[in-house]
Amino acid sequence: MPTYKAPLRDMRFLINEVLDYSTHYASLSNGADATPDMVDAILDGAAALCEDVLAPINLSGDAEGCTFSNGNVTTPSGFKEAYKAFVEGGWQGLSFPTEYGGQGLPMSVNVFKSEMAGTANWSFNMYPGLSIGCINTLMQYGTPAQKKLYLPPLVAGEWTGTMCLTEAQCGTDLAQVKTRAVPQADGTFKLTGTKIFISSGEHDLTDNIIHIVLARLPDAPAGTRGISLFIVPKVIVNDDGTLGARNAVNCGSIEHKMGIRASSTALLNFDDATGYMIAEENKGLEAMFTFMNTARIGTAIQGVAQAEASFQGALAYARERRSMRALSGKKEPEFAADALIWHPDVRRMLLTQKAFAFYNLNAIESVFIQTIATGKFKMVLL
Amino acid sequence: MPTYKAPLRDMRFLINEVLDYSTHYASLSNGADATPDMVDAILDGAAALCEDVLAPINLSGDAEGCTFSNGNVTTPSGFKEAYKAFVEGGWQGLSFPTEYGGQGLPMSVNVFKSEMAGTANWSFNMYPGLSIGCINTLMQYGTPAQKKLYLPPLVAGEWTGTMCLTEAQCGTDLAQVKTRAVPQADGTFKLTGTKIFISSGEHDLTDNIIHIVLARLPDAPAGTRGISLFIVPKVIVNDDGTLGARNAVNCGSIEHKMGIRASSTALLNFDDATGYMIAEENKGLEAMFTFMNTARIGTAIQGVAQAEASFQGALAYARERRSMRALSGKKEPEFAADALIWHPDVRRMLLTQKAFAFYNLNAIESVFIQTIATGKFKMVLL
Repeated sequence: MPTYKAPLRDMRFLINEVLDYSTHYASLSNGADATPDMVDAILDGAAALCEDVLAPINLSGDAEGCTFSNGNVTTPSGFKEAYKAFVEGGWQGLSFPTEYGGQGLPMSVNVFKSEMAGTANWSFNMYPGLSIGCINTLMQYGTPAQKKLYLPPLVAGEWTGTMCLTEAQCGTDLAQVKTRAVPQADGTFKLTGTKIFISSGEHDLTDNIIHIVLARLPDAPAGTRGISLFIVPKVIVNDDGTLGARNAVNCGSIEHKMGIRASSTALLNFDDATGYMIAEENKGLEAMFTFMNTARIGTAIQGVAQAEASFQGALAYARERRSMRALSGKKEPEFAADALIWHPDVRRMLLTQKAFAFYNLNAIESVFIQTIATGKFKMVLL
Repeated sequence: MPTYKAPLRDMRFLINEVLDYSTHYASLSNGADATPDMVDAILDGAAALCEDVLAPINLSGDAEGCTFSNGNVTTPSGFKEAYKAFVEGGWQGLSFPTEYGGQGLPMSVNVFKSEMAGTANWSFNMYPGLSIGCINTLMQYGTPAQKKLYLPPLVAGEWTGTMCLTEAQCGTDLAQVKTRAVPQADGTFKLTGTKIFISSGEHDLTDNIIHIVLARLPDAPAGTRGISLFIVPKVIVNDDGTLGARNAVNCGSIEHKMGIRASSTALLNFDDATGYMIAEENKGLEAMFTFMNTARIGTAIQGVAQAEASFQGALAYARERRSMRALSGKKEPEFAADALIWHPDVRRMLLTQKAFAFYNLNAIESVFIQTIATGKFKMVLL
């Protein structure tokens, strides 16, 4: 089994030689703290967490998987402890504003961390990963009271968040969303419906989960122009921030997603669950795009992470597995055959993998710089 | 869940319009019986078996998988009955010589059947599939007595066969084979070693399994020039063809192969197991190439089968799943959205899949005609 090793040299080459982050950070309102020393220390700390805590539970987590029983989901052995270490290290708040308890660093710093965490253990990375979209959506569309109530625990990682779009009859075509939200006298809403494929929809890592849910008001127009957006906490949050009653949102089952068996993908039933509207009535889909765009960046990071993971796995195997003799003569005469890495075509394939992994990392970090410059991509605190 | 439907129209188009099989069969020594009517009837019969017997246990077989206990492997529900139907229909012997109980038809007829069986249920197809290589190897290298003893039950499908090459330290690099074969006074050999990844290495479908095994004689030269080939039956076969004592070859575990959980992939331990040499001493690897080339054709058929299966699955989904409206206007106004197949790009992708599946089928059948013409490919009874 290959051991994960963070590609810090490649990352530093990108930061210092290719993308010139120090000039870039100097131009950002939140770039002052991102000094080269600070970025260096963050990369080292993230690498240690990913190599020593997240990578060792990747294979075992996949083998064990999540288990579902009576509406509860148990994550595989070691996930709770790893998540605790993640939270205690302050890793969730790296690039979120200090006013919500974050460290206020540029988002590109966090992307390096996410790439490392994703490569070390993508299943694990899904739990804090979904929270990022939830936080971005609340920051952009939440009322001041909502921000005050929900953001600090989310930014701290004490709670996680989810994105509830898909229903059995609609994935891409959200015009078909059926979940209903009925307004109540006190300004809240009662949501009823079933959402499927909800990543991190239920788990045992935190005391609360904040669901961001697409639903339709009773008098809403048909199609995408009649969709509103709601906060539906798993546990109702009192005005003072303490946890109140369990809300009527329950996990009905977990689903199988190839390769991420340690990530809980839930079917969620909302039965008159209490929700709070975010953004304007019938403008929910537009607001949800903040979450969806964050998730898209997450998916891009997954691509980078898988490229790196597959390269590291292949490299380790090519170094230890012996087959045939090198064309240029015996390299390891003490063994019956030479290691695969001595074969020119194997080496060519490994270098291609390495180039892809590095190029993709470069690409995603470049996109961040570009979107900061153009401002065209709706993201908070780039 | 999509239902498998044999692409008989495409196959007949290939046979009659593209490849002109009737002219081709007229030129073959064993082509006289392959009249258009006969080929038509065989295609219909194979389609019925694959659609009605093999396809219905594909999904359930994958979910249930094979189970291993105390050296025995139990195939999933329905596999025994399906294999019985396969044997009773005479499907194993389609293209093998009549002198061994086969129907003596050209091999290309059998490829159509294998493609259908593989598309309907690749896991199932592995069991009779490996036997084909075993039969070809025995036909080419077996002594008259070995052929008489082993071929009729294999051709009938009463027994199956395996290809035992890989050991933990060597897959591709067979120079590293360590399994030993010690000559005995009576002309037999005692084999000791462990083979891994042995497809159909142990199962409950037949009373006997004929392993074709690479091993090294005590005085053999190092490398590939010191490898010999042996018949090692799971149950010793008496000279009169009846089954004798259980041989010392035992399944130690079964392994996970993604997508073919209903196919038993075994680790086999040989502990002084009785074996019989085939082909010349130290020329075993060359002889094994008859098996390996048959397996390569099987793998090519798997490619064709998966292309067809994926096309059929995608087509069924595109017809039933509704998402968005067609660009050219509502097609199914009675529903909230139009079926995916109405979207031009979905249709383009489906047609690409269909073209690939058809092109691959054409390619593999063309290769058969070519190899028959050039005779360059070492196969018995093309």
